[in-house]
Amino acid sequence: MPHLVVLYTPDLEPQGAIAQLCRNLADTMVAQRDEAGTAVFPVGGVRVLAYPAAHSAVADGSGEHGFVYLNLRMARGRSPAVRQAVGEALAQAARAHFAPLLAQRHFGITLQVDEGSEVFDAKVGNLHALFAAC
Amino acid sequence: MPHLVVLYTPDLEPQGAIAQLCRNLADTMVAQRDEAGTAVFPVGGVRVLAYPAAHSAVADGSGEHGFVYLNLRMARGRSPAVRQAVGEALAQAARAHFAPLLAQRHFGITLQVDEGSEVFDAKVGNLHALFAAC
Amino acid sequence: MPHLVVLYTPDLEPQGAIAQLCRNLADTMVAQRDEAGTAVFPVGGVRVLAYPAAHSAVADGSGEHGFVYLNLRMARGRSPAVRQAVGEALAQAARAHFAPLLAQRHFGITLQVDEGSEVFDAKVGNLHALFAAC
Repeated sequence: MPHLVVLYTPDLEPQGAIAQLCRNLADTMVAQRDEAGTAVFPVGGVRVLAYPAAHSAVADGSGEHGFVYLNLRMARGRSPAVRQAVGEALAQAARAHFAPLLAQRHFGITLQVDEGSEVFDAKVGNLHALFAAC
Repeated sequence: MPHLVVLYTPDLEPQGAIAQLCRNLADTMVAQRDEAGTAVFPVGGVRVLAYPAAHSAVADGSGEHGFVYLNLRMARGRSPAVRQAVGEALAQAARAHFAPLLAQRHFGITLQVDEGSEVFDAKVGNLHALFAAC
Repeated sequence: MPHLVVLYTPDLEPQGAIAQLCRNLADTMVAQRDEAGTAVFPVGGVRVLAYPAAHSAVADGSGEHGFVYLNLRMARGRSPAVRQAVGEALAQAARAHFAPLLAQRHFGITLQVDEGSEVFDAKVGNLHALFAAC
């Protein structure tokens, strides 16, 4: 955690520079600081995964309307101000990334931030330890 | 919003006509009306994205059993009656779409409707404006 | 239900034996028993779907750090002890599966178990009936 999953219509694959979007979003998450100046997210926990759909349908089918959905799931317990700031920073990163393409064509972009409500959570890899050690 | 994500086993790719399923489900969402006759969902907010899994395992592995999971995430606040009607309409659309294939082979279909509980939400594209303008 | 979705960075595709992971996780779910010795999950409801990302970014981009996210969504109402046991069994299955690869390289693995909070649920396939009949 935090995990940001990007789901998008396949028509955005050639134009969307989605690999760069992933990096921009991860960098944005790494850069977040809370009121005390502490990193909001552990570096080793930042993950962005992006998936073009194999098939899709948007709106009423009246045109080639693309769509990008960005969904961040983060752990519970951060302050409303931090959650708002994180959301706005990610929305701004998405807006900046897609600005040139939004000037050329129509597509929707929705960003939603969820707090996880998991009943079980386990980390069984070795990535956090690596970054904690650095 | 509403976003409907379809996850399915790859054995259904050649037979499932999933692109058509996406269109049918989107049309079903666009057609929904509440008690007052108002559209339940804004046309520009209807999105269906479908993803065949790269790898999968279903049940006990005793046969080639496929699976389709349809998950609609919609905004909070609609009435129980509207939520039920939306769910039933989508279930009926899925049932009608897959009826020929269900007569030939075994696979599971689960539809679940969630109300989002996001702590941050932003629309940063230009699709809603397009449909609002129409 | 239960549905286990596995999202992972594409660098793990050649090494991760993800098809086998899916089978191992499904077998683990099928094997779960509650305090009374009853199966926790109906066999016909066990589903694992795995998706390599098309694009991804992990941590600060300082190295090739992979990531696997396992998310189980199951129906509400199971006891805390059962939920804990299911989570631990799946975490152990993931740990055992990835142990050889974790000895060679760094990647994160997170497992989270959610209880669904759906407002509508329908099964419209013919798989449960098949297993109920067996």
